[in-house]
Amino acid sequence: MAAAATPLGFIGLGMMGLPMARSLLRHGRALVACDPSEAARDALSEGAGAGAVRFAATPAGVAETAETVVLVLPDSKAVAQVVEGPGGLLAALRPGHLVVDMGSSLPAETRRLAAAAAERGAAFLDAPVSGGVAKARDGTLAIMLGGDDEPCARAEPVLREMGAPPIRTGPVGSAHAMKALNNYVYAAGLLAAAEAVRMAEALGLDLHVFTDVLNASSGRNVATETKLKSDVLTGRYAAGFQLGLMRKDLETAGSIAAETGLDAPGLSLCRALWAEAVEKLGPRVDNLEIHRFLGQRETAPR
Amino acid sequence: MAAAATPLGFIGLGMMGLPMARSLLRHGRALVACDPSEAARDALSEGAGAGAVRFAATPAGVAETAETVVLVLPDSKAVAQVVEGPGGLLAALRPGHLVVDMGSSLPAETRRLAAAAAERGAAFLDAPVSGGVAKARDGTLAIMLGGDDEPCARAEPVLREMGAPPIRTGPVGSAHAMKALNNYVYAAGLLAAAEAVRMAEALGLDLHVFTDVLNASSGRNVATETKLKSDVLTGRYAAGFQLGLMRKDLETAGSIAAETGLDAPGLSLCRALWAEAVEKLGPRVDNLEIHRFLGQRETAPR
Amino acid sequence: MAAAATPLGFIGLGMMGLPMARSLLRHGRALVACDPSEAARDALSEGAGAGAVRFAATPAGVAETAETVVLVLPDSKAVAQVVEGPGGLLAALRPGHLVVDMGSSLPAETRRLAAAAAERGAAFLDAPVSGGVAKARDGTLAIMLGGDDEPCARAEPVLREMGAPPIRTGPVGSAHAMKALNNYVYAAGLLAAAEAVRMAEALGLDLHVFTDVLNASSGRNVATETKLKSDVLTGRYAAGFQLGLMRKDLETAGSIAAETGLDAPGLSLCRALWAEAVEKLGPRVDNLEIHRFLGQRETAPR
Amino acid sequence: MAAAATPLGFIGLGMMGLPMARSLLRHGRALVACDPSEAARDALSEGAGAGAVRFAATPAGVAETAETVVLVLPDSKAVAQVVEGPGGLLAALRPGHLVVDMGSSLPAETRRLAAAAAERGAAFLDAPVSGGVAKARDGTLAIMLGGDDEPCARAEPVLREMGAPPIRTGPVGSAHAMKALNNYVYAAGLLAAAEAVRMAEALGLDLHVFTDVLNASSGRNVATETKLKSDVLTGRYAAGFQLGLMRKDLETAGSIAAETGLDAPGLSLCRALWAEAVEKLGPRVDNLEIHRFLGQRETAPR
Ligand SMILES: NC(=O)C1=CN([C@@H]2O[C@H](COP(=O)(O)OP(=O)(O)OC[C@H]3O[C@@H](n4cnc5c(N)ncnc54)[C@H](OP(=O)(O)O)[C@@H]3O)[C@@H](O)[C@H]2O)C=CC1
Ligand SMILES: NC(=O)C1=CN([C@@H]2O[C@H](COP(=O)(O)OP(=O)(O)OC[C@H]3O[C@@H](n4cnc5c(N)ncnc54)[C@H](OP(=O)(O)O)[C@@H]3O)[C@@H](O)[C@H]2O)C=CC1
Ligand SMILES: NC(=O)C1=CN([C@@H]2O[C@H](COP(=O)(O)OP(=O)(O)OC[C@H]3O[C@@H](n4cnc5c(N)ncnc54)[C@H](OP(=O)(O)O)[C@@H]3O)[C@@H](O)[C@H]2O)C=CC1
Repeated sequence: MAAAATPLGFIGLGMMGLPMARSLLRHGRALVACDPSEAARDALSEGAGAGAVRFAATPAGVAETAETVVLVLPDSKAVAQVVEGPGGLLAALRPGHLVVDMGSSLPAETRRLAAAAAERGAAFLDAPVSGGVAKARDGTLAIMLGGDDEPCARAEPVLREMGAPPIRTGPVGSAHAMKALNNYVYAAGLLAAAEAVRMAEALGLDLHVFTDVLNASSGRNVATETKLKSDVLTGRYAAGFQLGLMRKDLETAGSIAAETGLDAPGLSLCRALWAEAVEKLGPRVDNLEIHRFLGQRETAPR
Repeated sequence: MAAAATPLGFIGLGMMGLPMARSLLRHGRALVACDPSEAARDALSEGAGAGAVRFAATPAGVAETAETVVLVLPDSKAVAQVVEGPGGLLAALRPGHLVVDMGSSLPAETRRLAAAAAERGAAFLDAPVSGGVAKARDGTLAIMLGGDDEPCARAEPVLREMGAPPIRTGPVGSAHAMKALNNYVYAAGLLAAAEAVRMAEALGLDLHVFTDVLNASSGRNVATETKLKSDVLTGRYAAGFQLGLMRKDLETAGSIAAETGLDAPGLSLCRALWAEAVEKLGPRVDNLEIHRFLGQRETAPR
Repeated sequence: MAAAATPLGFIGLGMMGLPMARSLLRHGRALVACDPSEAARDALSEGAGAGAVRFAATPAGVAETAETVVLVLPDSKAVAQVVEGPGGLLAALRPGHLVVDMGSSLPAETRRLAAAAAERGAAFLDAPVSGGVAKARDGTLAIMLGGDDEPCARAEPVLREMGAPPIRTGPVGSAHAMKALNNYVYAAGLLAAAEAVRMAEALGLDLHVFTDVLNASSGRNVATETKLKSDVLTGRYAAGFQLGLMRKDLETAGSIAAETGLDAPGLSLCRALWAEAVEKLGPRVDNLEIHRFLGQRETAPR
Repeated sequence: MAAAATPLGFIGLGMMGLPMARSLLRHGRALVACDPSEAARDALSEGAGAGAVRFAATPAGVAETAETVVLVLPDSKAVAQVVEGPGGLLAALRPGHLVVDMGSSLPAETRRLAAAAAERGAAFLDAPVSGGVAKARDGTLAIMLGGDDEPCARAEPVLREMGAPPIRTGPVGSAHAMKALNNYVYAAGLLAAAEAVRMAEALGLDLHVFTDVLNASSGRNVATETKLKSDVLTGRYAAGFQLGLMRKDLETAGSIAAETGLDAPGLSLCRALWAEAVEKLGPRVDNLEIHRFLGQRETAPR
């Protein structure tokens, strides 16, 4: 339990940010947080010890109190607003400040913001996570970490309180790139599993047995292991990761394909299908509803 | 170590069949085997104890000596030839005979041959495997098992000598269906991983670190865990599973999509890409060469 | 110039409906029309002779005055609302009434509404059109016509005032089916042309010459002939057909693929790409913006 | 009728070359030709006037007699062999020689060979054609022409005897690039038409009427206009253009996508499907068999 005298900044208390902030509190951290939603702020205060959490009205307000500021925001657009918008972090950054973007953002944007922070003598790192809400709650997230040695070394103790030892991925932006590519591999495996389950169902096969077969065989992946039985076969669809966020990650991977000029036919298909699903179901449903979407795609629209 | 007085029949001594037959020998079984390749027959004899292995000239010859006959053949066409061709098993089958097709065959063909065997009072089961050459060698294959209780019960002790306790999948043909769908999920995960690795490479990222990231995150699948570092990043491409066999399995999955009338866009893409790869590289290269194929697809043909 | 004593009903005065209604006026028809938009109603009144156009507040009001009612509505949902919603046509239908759906609707819905009309002794036909706003204005639309001989014979003189002699396609619903399949073939040709133009541009080729080459060669299609130079190369994108309407037509074609259990990989891709484009650009931009969308798809999102 | 004293060289007497050479003979040209197939050579001699046709044993032999040499060969590999192989053209080229590659070759290879010819003071142009065997026979081919003004001016009178006035496309290689992109647009339209016809058939619609609908509507393209009724609906499949040649053209278009770093999802799909079709049906069947292939793709393999 490594506590720190100065509070840690924390911006973004959504599906992931809230349990991650709570992990930090459990480790004895004091936090100065910021989130537009009152409900989210109340939720964080609730379980916290007296004085452990304060709130700032703006990101700049967070940076006035905290040296290290963690961001867990939906996308690069939100990050840019928090950093560069009115009341944003950037104007408040001084030498010694360390901003850690733990969301899944665009590598190119991350590099741009890191350069802007550097001009003010501050450091900006990318530390996206994997593992979803469940591992956020347990403090066992997988964490990738991009950036120079010195700021990474400063960030590591904080990151360790939310997950496994971070994997150093290279220069700033590299962690966000790997995260996007990772999520593409996950999406492709989920899509294939969803299609396979639907075919097995149409054949009248036992879907629990089929899931066991996949998990005992070469078809095993994170979706077959952790999602099929609990959330797909039940129709519960509650992994806590939104369809629209996966779509964003696939777009990020698409920007890497474009940047590198590579032809990635599987990625191209996933991008189009997730966009189609978002168009049909909206961005805020659970990502696992891609399974439901496949069923709808078969049916005459009305 | 469960030995049997009557020898077991074993037809097909290829990449998988040979190590599987050796597992049976290690468990004290006597075998009467059959394979067109002299090299394969010699390879089996070599390590075997005196008298443990005999060879029959034809499948019918195998059935004359053995009650239970295991098939490990490339595809349904080979199975049909072994069963119904000249000197085939079928004419030799009597009540009490048990044929176990451990290759990856077409479910519809499997049902047809099971019915033909039943007319002669014999049983025919599908028991395809997963795990590749490595697990075949260790005797730790995953085994699916389709068919009625009685013959399945007779087959299980034999199967246990080659792998984990078989998973009962339902009526005859159901194991072959699940196997094909499983292999599709594997292929889709491999394709995505191969694309992702190529993009990461083009970005100049460290590919061993990237593989670690995938394996610590939601992108983990059997290909990322067991193939990337050893066979893809090295360009070794030596998993022991042929590109053409995966293509066949994807065609089998395609026949399920057609039979059930389902739209499986990811499967459709994989079918087309594997066919394109087979057309370019030939069917006998290793399945992992799909990674090399993606690179070639980028380049001007000459 | 074939005029009729009783006015013709006309519901839906959008991009297509307005010029089609004007064609009828030019042929001396009197119209009783209905459309929610005041601007659309004013636009129709404007050029019309005194007394030639009246408006009804509801579809039922149209059917009270007119025996034959033409619908030019965005989709089957709008048709269902006009027919079955409050103040809808259906309750007002009597023997002798003839409803002609000239929009691009779902075949299954069309059959359903035709059956409902038949129960009230009225006829319901599908007569979708092709040729876009330009041909609607000139009264030279291609018209498909589905339904029984007798009502088709009654509809033909009216249809002839808006286009070429209608092509009889078979029973009710068949014209809507052919229209959807036709639009898929158009979309696929447009997509290919847009991709080809973008590649030719990246090679630095002269795009007007390239268009001439396509039109002199086997690449010629309706998009290359009538859209590339005027609307794609100029970036004008103003064909008057909305992206969202094409998406709807592709969904209709998709429902045919599902209904017939056929695997149509090109259609599957077009569905996904148009959905992705609608998701990115919104449904109301011009369908030709699929060309712009392809360019955006290359670029890092922000 | 523009006759020339010196004979014209002509290499490649296949489906296209033979009728193109005959067009030249009809215009009073004398030819010195070369083709490995005796049957092809006999076919050319047959209808020719006395002394109008001679044969050379090698391409070099052709260049010894003729100043202008036309190539109509299957692909860049064959062109490279004819130019650079043993007995090839290159060694025989002198200032004043003009080589015109009228096949559909790889732009990059064409540029390379043009540079090699230039080193020997000779000119090398690309003049691919469109219109198929029928227009080759009638001498009404569409011809694209890439290269510098002076050699193009020399080639034009010859080209005019085989088709319409050539369209100048830009520098050498540009005509081959446009040809490949054109063929992609054709292939995409053919694929869509084939899928649509199969769906219409499954709905029980009249396919001749459906073809009329396409041709009167926005779905019209060269395949719907010239191939559906004669060769697809009849199952005749005899356009005279091989599946494997279209596959080659799609690969050429793919090399342009790779070179320009553009994402062309429709092209990617066509490449994969044509490769799958070639893998299943072989390269030498007619390109229209893509329609039959779609039907096979639905069916369980055996
Ligand atoms: N390799 C792998 O990792 C896995 C393979 N499988 C499946 O297992 C099956 C076998 O695969 P694998 O061992 O890799 O394939 P191989 O091609 O290496 O082996 C097939 C063997 O069957 C023999 N054979 C073919 N026809 C006959 C016949 N008419 N009579 C007797 N023997 C015959 C072949 O002989 P010859 O070579 O002389 O033609 C060859 O020895 C396939 O269905 C495959 O899909 C399943 C899981 C993993
Ligand atoms: N545009 C084109 O080139 C072609 C279009 N088509 C098809 O023709 C049909 C019409 O297309 P288009 O004219 O472009 O579409 P628009 O959206 O421009 O026009 C539709 C019209 O219907 C009106 N409308 C919608 N709901 C109702 C209602 N409940 N009662 C009365 N009026 C209603 C709309 O009013 P408001 O705008 O106020 O909602 C609008 O004026 C579609 O099915 C389309 O797919 C076919 C061939 C070519
Ligand atoms: N067919 C069509 O509709 C169209 C074809 N094209 C293009 O035109 C070109 C020719 O096509 P097509 O005529 O159909 O093809 P074919 O395969 O019918 O004809 C090619 C001819 O070239 C000969 N040939 C091959 N190699 C050599 C060589 N080394 N020396 C001399 N002759 C050789 C072949 O002889 P052999 O058969 O003995 O090998 C054959 O006679 C291709 O690039 C094609 O893509 C363009 C437009 C339309």
